[in-house]
Amino acid sequence: MYGDIKLFSGTACPELSTEIARYLGAPLGGRDIIKFPNENIFVRLHNSVRGQDVYVIQTTSAPVSDNLMELLITIQTLKLDSAARITAVVPYLCYARSDKKDQPRVPITARLVADMIEVAGADRYITMDLHAGQIQGFFSIPGDVLTAFHILSAYFVEKRPVLVNPVIVTADLGFAKKGRNFAARLGASMAFIEKRRTGNDAHAQAMTVIGDVQGRDVVIVDDEVDTAGSVCQAVEIVKDHGARDVYLSFVHAIFSHPAVERLAALPIREIVTTDTVPVPPEKRVPNLRVLSVAPLLGEVIRRAHEGRSVGEMFNE
Amino acid sequence: MYGDIKLFSGTACPELSTEIARYLGAPLGGRDIIKFPNENIFVRLHNSVRGQDVYVIQTTSAPVSDNLMELLITIQTLKLDSAARITAVVPYLCYARSDKKDQPRVPITARLVADMIEVAGADRYITMDLHAGQIQGFFSIPGDVLTAFHILSAYFVEKRPVLVNPVIVTADLGFAKKGRNFAARLGASMAFIEKRRTGNDAHAQAMTVIGDVQGRDVVIVDDEVDTAGSVCQAVEIVKDHGARDVYLSFVHAIFSHPAVERLAALPIREIVTTDTVPVPPEKRVPNLRVLSVAPLLGEVIRRAHEGRSVGEMFNE
Amino acid sequence: MYGDIKLFSGTACPELSTEIARYLGAPLGGRDIIKFPNENIFVRLHNSVRGQDVYVIQTTSAPVSDNLMELLITIQTLKLDSAARITAVVPYLCYARSDKKDQPRVPITARLVADMIEVAGADRYITMDLHAGQIQGFFSIPGDVLTAFHILSAYFVEKRPVLVNPVIVTADLGFAKKGRNFAARLGASMAFIEKRRTGNDAHAQAMTVIGDVQGRDVVIVDDEVDTAGSVCQAVEIVKDHGARDVYLSFVHAIFSHPAVERLAALPIREIVTTDTVPVPPEKRVPNLRVLSVAPLLGEVIRRAHEGRSVGEMFNE
Amino acid sequence: MYGDIKLFSGTACPELSTEIARYLGAPLGGRDIIKFPNENIFVRLHNSVRGQDVYVIQTTSAPVSDNLMELLITIQTLKLDSAARITAVVPYLCYARSDKKDQPRVPITARLVADMIEVAGADRYITMDLHAGQIQGFFSIPGDVLTAFHILSAYFVEKRPVLVNPVIVTADLGFAKKGRNFAARLGASMAFIEKRRTGNDAHAQAMTVIGDVQGRDVVIVDDEVDTAGSVCQAVEIVKDHGARDVYLSFVHAIFSHPAVERLAALPIREIVTTDTVPVPPEKRVPNLRVLSVAPLLGEVIRRAHEGRSVGEMFNE
Amino acid sequence: MYGDIKLFSGTACPELSTEIARYLGAPLGGRDIIKFPNENIFVRLHNSVRGQDVYVIQTTSAPVSDNLMELLITIQTLKLDSAARITAVVPYLCYARSDKKDQPRVPITARLVADMIEVAGADRYITMDLHAGQIQGFFSIPGDVLTAFHILSAYFVEKRPVLVNPVIVTADLGFAKKGRNFAARLGASMAFIEKRRTGNDAHAQAMTVIGDVQGRDVVIVDDEVDTAGSVCQAVEIVKDHGARDVYLSFVHAIFSHPAVERLAALPIREIVTTDTVPVPPEKRVPNLRVLSVAPLLGEVIRRAHEGRSVGEMFNE
Amino acid sequence: MYGDIKLFSGTACPELSTEIARYLGAPLGGRDIIKFPNENIFVRLHNSVRGQDVYVIQTTSAPVSDNLMELLITIQTLKLDSAARITAVVPYLCYARSDKKDQPRVPITARLVADMIEVAGADRYITMDLHAGQIQGFFSIPGDVLTAFHILSAYFVEKRPVLVNPVIVTADLGFAKKGRNFAARLGASMAFIEKRRTGNDAHAQAMTVIGDVQGRDVVIVDDEVDTAGSVCQAVEIVKDHGARDVYLSFVHAIFSHPAVERLAALPIREIVTTDTVPVPPEKRVPNLRVLSVAPLLGEVIRRAHEGRSVGEMFNE
Repeated sequence: MYGDIKLFSGTACPELSTEIARYLGAPLGGRDIIKFPNENIFVRLHNSVRGQDVYVIQTTSAPVSDNLMELLITIQTLKLDSAARITAVVPYLCYARSDKKDQPRVPITARLVADMIEVAGADRYITMDLHAGQIQGFFSIPGDVLTAFHILSAYFVEKRPVLVNPVIVTADLGFAKKGRNFAARLGASMAFIEKRRTGNDAHAQAMTVIGDVQGRDVVIVDDEVDTAGSVCQAVEIVKDHGARDVYLSFVHAIFSHPAVERLAALPIREIVTTDTVPVPPEKRVPNLRVLSVAPLLGEVIRRAHEGRSVGEMFNE
Repeated sequence: MYGDIKLFSGTACPELSTEIARYLGAPLGGRDIIKFPNENIFVRLHNSVRGQDVYVIQTTSAPVSDNLMELLITIQTLKLDSAARITAVVPYLCYARSDKKDQPRVPITARLVADMIEVAGADRYITMDLHAGQIQGFFSIPGDVLTAFHILSAYFVEKRPVLVNPVIVTADLGFAKKGRNFAARLGASMAFIEKRRTGNDAHAQAMTVIGDVQGRDVVIVDDEVDTAGSVCQAVEIVKDHGARDVYLSFVHAIFSHPAVERLAALPIREIVTTDTVPVPPEKRVPNLRVLSVAPLLGEVIRRAHEGRSVGEMFNE
Repeated sequence: MYGDIKLFSGTACPELSTEIARYLGAPLGGRDIIKFPNENIFVRLHNSVRGQDVYVIQTTSAPVSDNLMELLITIQTLKLDSAARITAVVPYLCYARSDKKDQPRVPITARLVADMIEVAGADRYITMDLHAGQIQGFFSIPGDVLTAFHILSAYFVEKRPVLVNPVIVTADLGFAKKGRNFAARLGASMAFIEKRRTGNDAHAQAMTVIGDVQGRDVVIVDDEVDTAGSVCQAVEIVKDHGARDVYLSFVHAIFSHPAVERLAALPIREIVTTDTVPVPPEKRVPNLRVLSVAPLLGEVIRRAHEGRSVGEMFNE
Repeated sequence: MYGDIKLFSGTACPELSTEIARYLGAPLGGRDIIKFPNENIFVRLHNSVRGQDVYVIQTTSAPVSDNLMELLITIQTLKLDSAARITAVVPYLCYARSDKKDQPRVPITARLVADMIEVAGADRYITMDLHAGQIQGFFSIPGDVLTAFHILSAYFVEKRPVLVNPVIVTADLGFAKKGRNFAARLGASMAFIEKRRTGNDAHAQAMTVIGDVQGRDVVIVDDEVDTAGSVCQAVEIVKDHGARDVYLSFVHAIFSHPAVERLAALPIREIVTTDTVPVPPEKRVPNLRVLSVAPLLGEVIRRAHEGRSVGEMFNE
Repeated sequence: MYGDIKLFSGTACPELSTEIARYLGAPLGGRDIIKFPNENIFVRLHNSVRGQDVYVIQTTSAPVSDNLMELLITIQTLKLDSAARITAVVPYLCYARSDKKDQPRVPITARLVADMIEVAGADRYITMDLHAGQIQGFFSIPGDVLTAFHILSAYFVEKRPVLVNPVIVTADLGFAKKGRNFAARLGASMAFIEKRRTGNDAHAQAMTVIGDVQGRDVVIVDDEVDTAGSVCQAVEIVKDHGARDVYLSFVHAIFSHPAVERLAALPIREIVTTDTVPVPPEKRVPNLRVLSVAPLLGEVIRRAHEGRSVGEMFNE
Repeated sequence: MYGDIKLFSGTACPELSTEIARYLGAPLGGRDIIKFPNENIFVRLHNSVRGQDVYVIQTTSAPVSDNLMELLITIQTLKLDSAARITAVVPYLCYARSDKKDQPRVPITARLVADMIEVAGADRYITMDLHAGQIQGFFSIPGDVLTAFHILSAYFVEKRPVLVNPVIVTADLGFAKKGRNFAARLGASMAFIEKRRTGNDAHAQAMTVIGDVQGRDVVIVDDEVDTAGSVCQAVEIVKDHGARDVYLSFVHAIFSHPAVERLAALPIREIVTTDTVPVPPEKRVPNLRVLSVAPLLGEVIRRAHEGRSVGEMFNE
């Protein structure tokens, strides 16, 4: 209906792209992506995409600005080459935490990013586990926002028999509701970490555990781990409150400095994440397990191309 | 800079509009709003708004569709009459809970509403306590999203000396973070209600209180009360867990049937809300206290007109 | 070319929708349309429409605002579910009489409605007998504006042998030209009712019959009958001028109060209309005949889907 | 509010532009408008319009395409020079009769013209006596659509004492309603010309006078006279039906060939029109009277600039 | 993928259109294009284009404004008739020399033309040898910008053996780079004409030949010849500097007055151009050779329709 | 007219911004620009810009993607804070060399950048010496494209008495025309470097000097110097052809690696450039002279703010 399927990959997540291509049995389209000495990024497609149904796979982790520009330039190149339909496949969407004005005179950069993807020429988008589901509403083009929490929770469901009295803990109250869903799938109870500023010092915080963790295995869940500050504080406080083993599970392994040092220093039994952001060998702490979202993205691309429902994988 | 200030009011919240006009010392502009026998709504301005800085005050509570249409038609009328700038002042924005696709094949109606307000011709908008702050990102026009939580929490801060060991409770985990801010202002602790579906029955729910309410005064906070189902369950369960007095506080008093019956039947010490949605006499349960947002909206309109900062009132 | 055909119906004209579906041999798509206690309308599709060619049938008679919102929300839902093409099928388009500024400081609501249908995501529209053909120009998307006057005039052509010296009369001078076409098909002559305000009283009107009705059968034609005020005045004055039998024919049976009482009280031989607006049993005056537009709409949908000409049915 | 007022004129109606400038006491801005040998039109402003409130006066009579292009290029030039606000003042808007699809597979060129004026950069427009008022709805920018019928009818009101039993006649049924308004101002009665195709010949027409003209002075009114075919037929048929003196009155004197010959050949007492389209000396038949719209346009420009109401002159 | 192929031609280049249709083996679609006495252009398609892939061939040489309007109106007609995809095929795009503000307060008319083509409803465009390649960036729709220089240079490559020491000369320094490409294909050297204003007289120019032409055959190349002023000066000066035979080669034969007189008066061996602009018999100077671009345009249309690459013909 | 003037600076060219602020006597607005550990850029304004006329100064040299994102985010922040008018002041606009598709399947990134600046919310832009003037046409917002060639040529005019028989040379034929203007101002003659690929090797080039440089002082002019490859080849070849002293002059000192090494190694008398791109101390080769564009930009900002002409500085 929309011409042949055609996959392209930016330079941000080559392995994930390759896995998706393998799942689909369709090769990645040839293209040059060159960064000139003046840092201008240049894209050239090896073959025409005229009248084809094109999917550009590019995650937008670091280097963020370059990866985003690369995505946008590739989309425009495809549009100018008269592709029939262009879908931006962005496993991790940058700036998703800049999604509202929670103080005066700040941007809503996630809306800007959505506008940029549209103005570059994308007809649709596919992404995963947005920090806030509302970001779907920032786009005026349709899209599929998928979740990897089924993959993560399935992993723990399998491990359930060995978990002692498990309790799901969220380090951020804004994630409380999604944590509840995770807990429900495991049949686990919940607890929350509440942080509150103390005194006049902007950085002094009092932390409280609301709910019971004593003697239980704790799974701390979140959508992403950036510098790992919050989750590491959470690990410490649940340990202080008598937690047994502590697990960490999240979708996007951003791992900005000093995440790796922090995570390596703590008594965490296992860290379970996905490959929406590539985790290079030097960041792979020993107890890290990376589950692949390639089959999920591949299947959604296939269904989108064929005009079949992706509803059952859709969202939580 | 944008011509004279000019206020117009739809028919949805005449008292609030009058209060705002009084605050500003500017009369409401004359206009006819007629619903013809065929239900087509008709608007006619009594005087020209050419080159003026116009604010249309219209809340979008029930009758929702009519109130929204009235707002849109008024905006278009002002635009076609060559107003210099049009600001939609919508104390309560309808459809704010339809803000993401949390299941397949459903709308994001809040985005549609934002698009409709823009396509009608609004240059800016002012609204209050959106269900999700991200809805700001649904608009491509700038706006001021205000909060009445300062007004509500100030009320309880004043009452603080008589509250016994107060604890803030949220009936919905999605509201946990805003509840925390409320608690911080009172120097109160927090507890949460967690709901979880049980078995195969879609309606069977198990509720848990996470955190301590025994012997304490409880303030249940939320952004709006619609049919009052959730908050009434919350009142019951905290009472079951030994709560002392129970207070209820929320911004938008939607009060759909059977909210009034439910609220009247429960041992709630006081219900504190605002006039973003008009509460008619027959819905005023005895212990209801309605605080006005008119001074806040009036001041913001004044500053927007004069090009002065409204930042300090902005958001939480 | 645009995927499979898929029909959806709002709640405004279920019988017409069913008739169209029967004509096409295609079932109406399953969907929930719920009005929540807070009056927010919610739509959920039972099956995916990804890549399909979808037609949403919804007339916009009373309750006008709700029916319009329902149409818009359904369109957005279909768009977000990645339908390939969405056609709004609106047998009666509301606000078509608000199509120009014939006095200062009033809206052009028909343009607003067109903009809303576009911003919701419709790619095309199909409608019938717009009050002014120019409303086509309010849309920037293409559409098919059909007429039921062929159906109505065919009915009278068949009845022609029993009509005595028939004359076509228009109650509104703005309809004079379309009345002429009707007359031409019947080989009938024409007469006009002219209304003119008298004195300073806004409501005092003098009516004149221009043309000859004496001893003739009169067919009063119009595009719609709302409260029936004008047509009933017309019936009386042609009777006063010696008309023999009087017939009434119009496309859209809006029938706002007190249309039914008025029509029932007058000596009208037959009232011939269509089902672009559903006429419930309690409004079916004895001499009312409702001709169905379902085969016409069905055939146009079929041709639009298959990419075949609908020109020969198009317009007058 | 919008900077200084600044008038520019295209080459289409230099005298009207000069009159408007004189009314406003503001000079026409210096500009070169050059048609190169390759027929490309070039515009250069003599002075900067940065931050000013600019009005471009250009009618769009013949040469139609060139005059329209000149208007559009001038608007873009003003926009690129950072004018604060640009108003297109188009006394006669071309293509206004191509305002709907009254047969399949034809354009709605008036909408295209509106889109072109907007895309060139106009913020507002002022025009006069559109063939159909609905064309206002083709623009998404606001505008003032004025009428010269007050000027024309005032002329006949003054002449009223000498008119014998006057009757207003419209040559086109589509103009019946506006003719009625004209008649009402004169306290005159009405009659209509009905044309109907006869047999299979596309050009054979039967004409009928509906209403009484015998022994009366007849004023035939219309919005424009193009080749004068219709109005001349009307003159003949009312004469055949015993009309006394015949007057002709219309706003836009298009006078395409062979209008002048036709009008000169007929016993018309007086032809009353305006200068929305320039009537060159060689087209000024002896009994032609041209009333100027310059004071009306000048006054509206002044009020638009100053942000004062133009409502009382607005429309009929 | 985009329905059947369908060709339409405006009235500007009927022979080229016919050649293209012959190449493609597809007939030109029937349509009426009428210029009414009031100069309004009217288009009516003989058959429906619903769901088809339509190509409108129209060059925009003189009469420029009319030809452009005809193109735009045809595009809108096709869009309103629900064509699936509309491609404007414009062999010569007017106003391409108005592509930047090289002095204050002038337009960028080429951008305006691009905007007009888009707002009329074109989905794609095909054109040839734009004065500046950057004009592609004026469109937000994709397009194919082709070059006829391969055709022109191939002609001279074939003639190469008889050329004596050929040198390519550009009359305009802005064309230096494209001239170099031409020279490279012929293995010829280059020379330039430099013009410089002298003294205060705007028209006094000193011309210099930079590079060696003495005793050589000279081919003067350019993108278009309008009044032939520059190229004729170039012919004279290279002759003055001892050039042997002089040839002229350019894509667009605009030939505004007095191009033909000028060209006929000079000792030019051969003038080689194309049919992007029709050259009527009376302008065919004896030594003029017109090479057809029909096969090139036909092949590109075929590939665009079939979704195959046109890259190898694309640009220089 | 547009509120108070307000200057903001990104982090790319702090010294130039400070100079401009000094020229205008207006301080740079306080703002935080933070790059978080996850590389997301965050902007926060210290004070409200509601209703003000804001100018954001940010050049887009390396780090290109970050500087561009910073510009866009700042613009959106200003828009969401309800600035009255936002002007992007971009002394050097990145991607200006990606301005056309000169081969198949490549982007036109300059258009993308223009679209991004518009979608972020800029109302106007100011930039300098675009690689191609046509890029102005990529923007649909108005802008001022300034040139520093007056500054550079003035420098050489002053030095003229000591120059021996100067000749202006362009290293790129695409720059020939602008070089001519430079030459005209100096009363110098011209010569060109022609490069041509030789054989099958993509990198083998033959270079030719067209025109006379023997014994003359040569000024090589260009718009920018990136890696300095072309200009250094040009220096060598003119030296080989007997040039006396060689000067280099260009606007944008991109100086990508290995520009500095190359320039330092050659016998260039003086390199004259501007500060549109900051040249850090380590890149300041001894004979480098940087002329400031701050007074020019400052004056243009002042005039833009006050609504006065900037025409006389505009373009060449």
